[in-house]
Amino acid sequence: MIVVMEQNATEEQIQHMTERVQSLGLKAHVIQGTERTVIAAVGDERVTKASSLESGPGVAEVMPILAPYKVASKELKSEPTRIKVLDYQAGAGVVGVMAGPCSVENEEQIVSSAKAVKKAGATALRGGAFKPRTSPYSFQGMKEEGLKLLALAREETGLAVVTEVMTSEEVDLVAKYADVLQIGARNMQNYRLLEAVGKSDRAVLLKRGASATVDEFLLAAEYVLNEGNPNVMLCERGIRTFEGHTRFTLPLATVPYLHKKTHLPVIIDPSHGTGHAYMVPDMSVAAVAAGADGLIIEVHPTPETAASDGYQTLSFDQFESTMARCQKVAAACDKEVCTMPQ
Amino acid sequence: MIVVMEQNATEEQIQHMTERVQSLGLKAHVIQGTERTVIAAVGDERVTKASSLESGPGVAEVMPILAPYKVASKELKSEPTRIKVLDYQAGAGVVGVMAGPCSVENEEQIVSSAKAVKKAGATALRGGAFKPRTSPYSFQGMKEEGLKLLALAREETGLAVVTEVMTSEEVDLVAKYADVLQIGARNMQNYRLLEAVGKSDRAVLLKRGASATVDEFLLAAEYVLNEGNPNVMLCERGIRTFEGHTRFTLPLATVPYLHKKTHLPVIIDPSHGTGHAYMVPDMSVAAVAAGADGLIIEVHPTPETAASDGYQTLSFDQFESTMARCQKVAAACDKEVCTMPQ
Amino acid sequence: MIVVMEQNATEEQIQHMTERVQSLGLKAHVIQGTERTVIAAVGDERVTKASSLESGPGVAEVMPILAPYKVASKELKSEPTRIKVLDYQAGAGVVGVMAGPCSVENEEQIVSSAKAVKKAGATALRGGAFKPRTSPYSFQGMKEEGLKLLALAREETGLAVVTEVMTSEEVDLVAKYADVLQIGARNMQNYRLLEAVGKSDRAVLLKRGASATVDEFLLAAEYVLNEGNPNVMLCERGIRTFEGHTRFTLPLATVPYLHKKTHLPVIIDPSHGTGHAYMVPDMSVAAVAAGADGLIIEVHPTPETAASDGYQTLSFDQFESTMARCQKVAAACDKEVCTMPQ
Amino acid sequence: MIVVMEQNATEEQIQHMTERVQSLGLKAHVIQGTERTVIAAVGDERVTKASSLESGPGVAEVMPILAPYKVASKELKSEPTRIKVLDYQAGAGVVGVMAGPCSVENEEQIVSSAKAVKKAGATALRGGAFKPRTSPYSFQGMKEEGLKLLALAREETGLAVVTEVMTSEEVDLVAKYADVLQIGARNMQNYRLLEAVGKSDRAVLLKRGASATVDEFLLAAEYVLNEGNPNVMLCERGIRTFEGHTRFTLPLATVPYLHKKTHLPVIIDPSHGTGHAYMVPDMSVAAVAAGADGLIIEVHPTPETAASDGYQTLSFDQFESTMARCQKVAAACDKEVCTMPQ
Repeated sequence: MIVVMEQNATEEQIQHMTERVQSLGLKAHVIQGTERTVIAAVGDERVTKASSLESGPGVAEVMPILAPYKVASKELKSEPTRIKVLDYQAGAGVVGVMAGPCSVENEEQIVSSAKAVKKAGATALRGGAFKPRTSPYSFQGMKEEGLKLLALAREETGLAVVTEVMTSEEVDLVAKYADVLQIGARNMQNYRLLEAVGKSDRAVLLKRGASATVDEFLLAAEYVLNEGNPNVMLCERGIRTFEGHTRFTLPLATVPYLHKKTHLPVIIDPSHGTGHAYMVPDMSVAAVAAGADGLIIEVHPTPETAASDGYQTLSFDQFESTMARCQKVAAACDKEVCTMPQ
Repeated sequence: MIVVMEQNATEEQIQHMTERVQSLGLKAHVIQGTERTVIAAVGDERVTKASSLESGPGVAEVMPILAPYKVASKELKSEPTRIKVLDYQAGAGVVGVMAGPCSVENEEQIVSSAKAVKKAGATALRGGAFKPRTSPYSFQGMKEEGLKLLALAREETGLAVVTEVMTSEEVDLVAKYADVLQIGARNMQNYRLLEAVGKSDRAVLLKRGASATVDEFLLAAEYVLNEGNPNVMLCERGIRTFEGHTRFTLPLATVPYLHKKTHLPVIIDPSHGTGHAYMVPDMSVAAVAAGADGLIIEVHPTPETAASDGYQTLSFDQFESTMARCQKVAAACDKEVCTMPQ
Repeated sequence: MIVVMEQNATEEQIQHMTERVQSLGLKAHVIQGTERTVIAAVGDERVTKASSLESGPGVAEVMPILAPYKVASKELKSEPTRIKVLDYQAGAGVVGVMAGPCSVENEEQIVSSAKAVKKAGATALRGGAFKPRTSPYSFQGMKEEGLKLLALAREETGLAVVTEVMTSEEVDLVAKYADVLQIGARNMQNYRLLEAVGKSDRAVLLKRGASATVDEFLLAAEYVLNEGNPNVMLCERGIRTFEGHTRFTLPLATVPYLHKKTHLPVIIDPSHGTGHAYMVPDMSVAAVAAGADGLIIEVHPTPETAASDGYQTLSFDQFESTMARCQKVAAACDKEVCTMPQ
Repeated sequence: MIVVMEQNATEEQIQHMTERVQSLGLKAHVIQGTERTVIAAVGDERVTKASSLESGPGVAEVMPILAPYKVASKELKSEPTRIKVLDYQAGAGVVGVMAGPCSVENEEQIVSSAKAVKKAGATALRGGAFKPRTSPYSFQGMKEEGLKLLALAREETGLAVVTEVMTSEEVDLVAKYADVLQIGARNMQNYRLLEAVGKSDRAVLLKRGASATVDEFLLAAEYVLNEGNPNVMLCERGIRTFEGHTRFTLPLATVPYLHKKTHLPVIIDPSHGTGHAYMVPDMSVAAVAAGADGLIIEVHPTPETAASDGYQTLSFDQFESTMARCQKVAAACDKEVCTMPQ
């Protein structure tokens, strides 16, 4: 950590801050610059109270040096992690695709969707049973009934099931039916929930909060990893910016960044990441080219009548041609999209 | 709702969408423009599936007209709501100030803080017992022990106690000790938690998520109100923007906006809203001048050694002079800062 | 345009606004909703003063329907435009690559860069002679001397020359040496400059401002097109968001959006769009996959000693392998990267 | 400057970077941390090429320590600067108000506006003659004819005249009629224009770009100051964020930040900063309470028919009551709003 002193900081203030740094168990190097003095604090700066140093007398700024996360970091584990759930795989050169409707609506809808996305090349089925909805007046999901239909669709197709869990109390219930527990963007910093899925034996798909920094995102993963669950997939689903022609802004540079910092696989959600069905195919292909380890895509038999998210949902045909494009681009990048026996 | 068709939409597509609008129970007015056709859909557009119309054939865009919330709206209740908890009041011309440390650390710290903020003019004591922390390695709070110390501080001073509850399972526990349940910014869209505090008889301080739109903020309040709890205070605590010289950007225009749209009181948090102690006094005064119904301010005996948030925390002296300035400006604006018998 | 009235708007106010709409030469359709009245204003809403309607009595909001630009729109010209300058081409299925150093520094540097980028597959040479620098204390470019060196490099390689022009007074001077006039992001709304390059016979590379909406971007292009210059390339170079791990956020969804709205080619700048050399290869490939019509990439013999932008600049080797990857992905997407006789 | 090395950086890389730092004329202190090595580079880091160090081998990050601007800094001049132009004053405890229409439209409009704003307490008249408009199809201003009408209004009232200059070529023309040259937000980084007004003897009102950092803002001021013109006022007019209920987000914390960093006066523009007339009064008062040295407010005889910006423009009555509120709050803050003989 670097403690930057004000230009007019006194000797006494510098001395005081040097002692404060030492009292936190860090070693202090005082460097007299031509205009300012800085104190380099050496040691594990992830200690409690370090940031409060900024309130010290004569302090201009405190700049951290070390990444705040550990288990997620590439420094701890340098080879990329590949997650495997049934026939679904993601990471270390293999691209896994999850697809399906935003919400489970009924048996016919979810089973036909499962068959269609399997045929096109997906290896996991997404579908919401517990739906976090911005408005209390919107469709809130079929709840356990929806989970049962997802399990039924798995029986019929062999696809792994990915579905969202919204609260720590429901982790056991959802884990009973699902193969992958999804943490939604709105819950990325719901720490009780992160701890609960960290104690589960299911893989976790952790979505980035719409305004979370990547460090906050990795620290959320750290909460899960820290409880002993190593099977975490990081999902970029778009951030909130000033742009109005997309619902969120999908920053694909997150892929090379995370690949540099962490061993965990990086999944891209081009449906929420753009909010418009017509953009999803191009952005899916771009995500694969950028090095993503997986995609999660909303697909519905008739998007126009979907109970939720229809505006960003592909039809079966659109999904099939998108998958064909992704497979060609993956091959051109010396990667493969994982498949299952049809 | 206005359904804007593409410039080259066919008659058949317009007819199809007209029927889709009608099938949602809305009345359709087709307006042929010189360049485009639009379909005005009249009725309660808060129905399920309305947004999925955007996936219809030939549709360029769907624009909502009505506010998505109801109970929170000024159209339902035009006079401003005043919240009263012990001697604390906020709303309808009265400004209530909550102050205290970020985290409860020990008895001496919280009791001395309570006495100091009461002396300076606050009527409620803030203090965190369950702390949502970005990093699993940071101080997580004293938990129930902290709640007990808050209750003790209330006994000694008469101040109302405001503290955060992080999960639905802990609502009863926290409500046993606290007068006001705080929902943190990270949990603004934790719908299970919103429903749980909606069933409580405690007042609720709902913080705006760092990237929540004001409509999303009001819909979060709607979740609470909808469960029967009318005592909701809306707290603006800053939004995430590109600015780096403040930790968040504090948009005071939220105050006149919310006053136009809702009857609920609006509280400003200049501590989180700026992230720097030296900015807190000026922004507190500015918030009062902008018409805020209350402030929540971090105060600690020695900010430099605070277990959390020290960089944005005022000392007792700084808080006292800030309160004096706020009182003068409130008077100049024909408002008063609520007080209690000393 | 849709004029949305307040819920409690009076008959008189509705009548007044209906007349105001008509006084602007638009036809007014009044639609009585269940909760609100809206006035649909039919006609060319790009008239002066339309937006000021929002200040009318009882008006809640004014929502435009039509795109504010015309000549740039796909509605005017539905086939994509291909720009050709010497051997450089971009648009309608052909991807053109511009590459070279941020600043022209000396003859050896620019000529060796030109040869290297040509060998790797670029067809245009970028290099700054007039440099817009955030700080007055930074290197401001070699000015006309730099332009002469660019022309010399063109003589030696046949590459088209792309360079920035910063002010309307210098358009003639820069056009004397350059094949493509670049308008920098900071000048995207420098309307005098846009008008001046609109009168030039050189092609224009227009960079998006870091916080410009896409409509503002297309309106800036409209200023150029409107003066009679049809050869405009739109360059997405990243937007300013809260993200700190990249210098700007590169939103590749701009590509499908612009391809839907305009016939002009879309160029991606992954160097400024990320601000980190290590991200440039992945994002270059992703841009091609997303459908970009061209790339502009910073390349320098020794990035570490570059006079500007070294942190986001590729070495010759890095550029060569990036080009090889782009060519493979372009082929997988049934597109080609344009080439020139070596 | 702090050069942070990668965790696995080699001794050779550290040695190389140490030499690179020294080759820039800086002194290098190498500090071996427990996890990483950092090199503290002591000296004037505003040298060319410093940022390109990030491309060096084994470098993780380069963090600047010193502010990049000099003349604007409080370190150079610690007392606040007060700008005086005719009877207008701003800075060092005095609040100056500029008001008037967005565009000059005709003699009657500008003269009546001048008289009304003077009566209410403004000491300067704003009005646009050269208008930078997002669309080439919008009203572009009356140009020199507008300047003449502004000068006429000054003759009739004694108010100082503030108006925008859009290009370096027009500085002399505008300066012939205006007392204060306004640089618009879109031109904040139009360096040729900054240099040109830096050579003028008129005071300059420099607006912050909608996505400019405060450091970029101060560096833009530095371009003007550097040419010898000391009379620069910094105008915060709102930044672009994700918020849609205001046209821009007005961050009043800019006021205490700039007061800490620079001696130049800080002016707030609540009209552009909110984009809605109904928010302007509350935000004007809040700006004064936050410590602003001045306000610039759009006022028009009939906002609803204004040629531009009507939606954010006050009527004469609204402005008068806003001024009365500002004066009371200024008094409560021990400041005064500057006035002129009526």
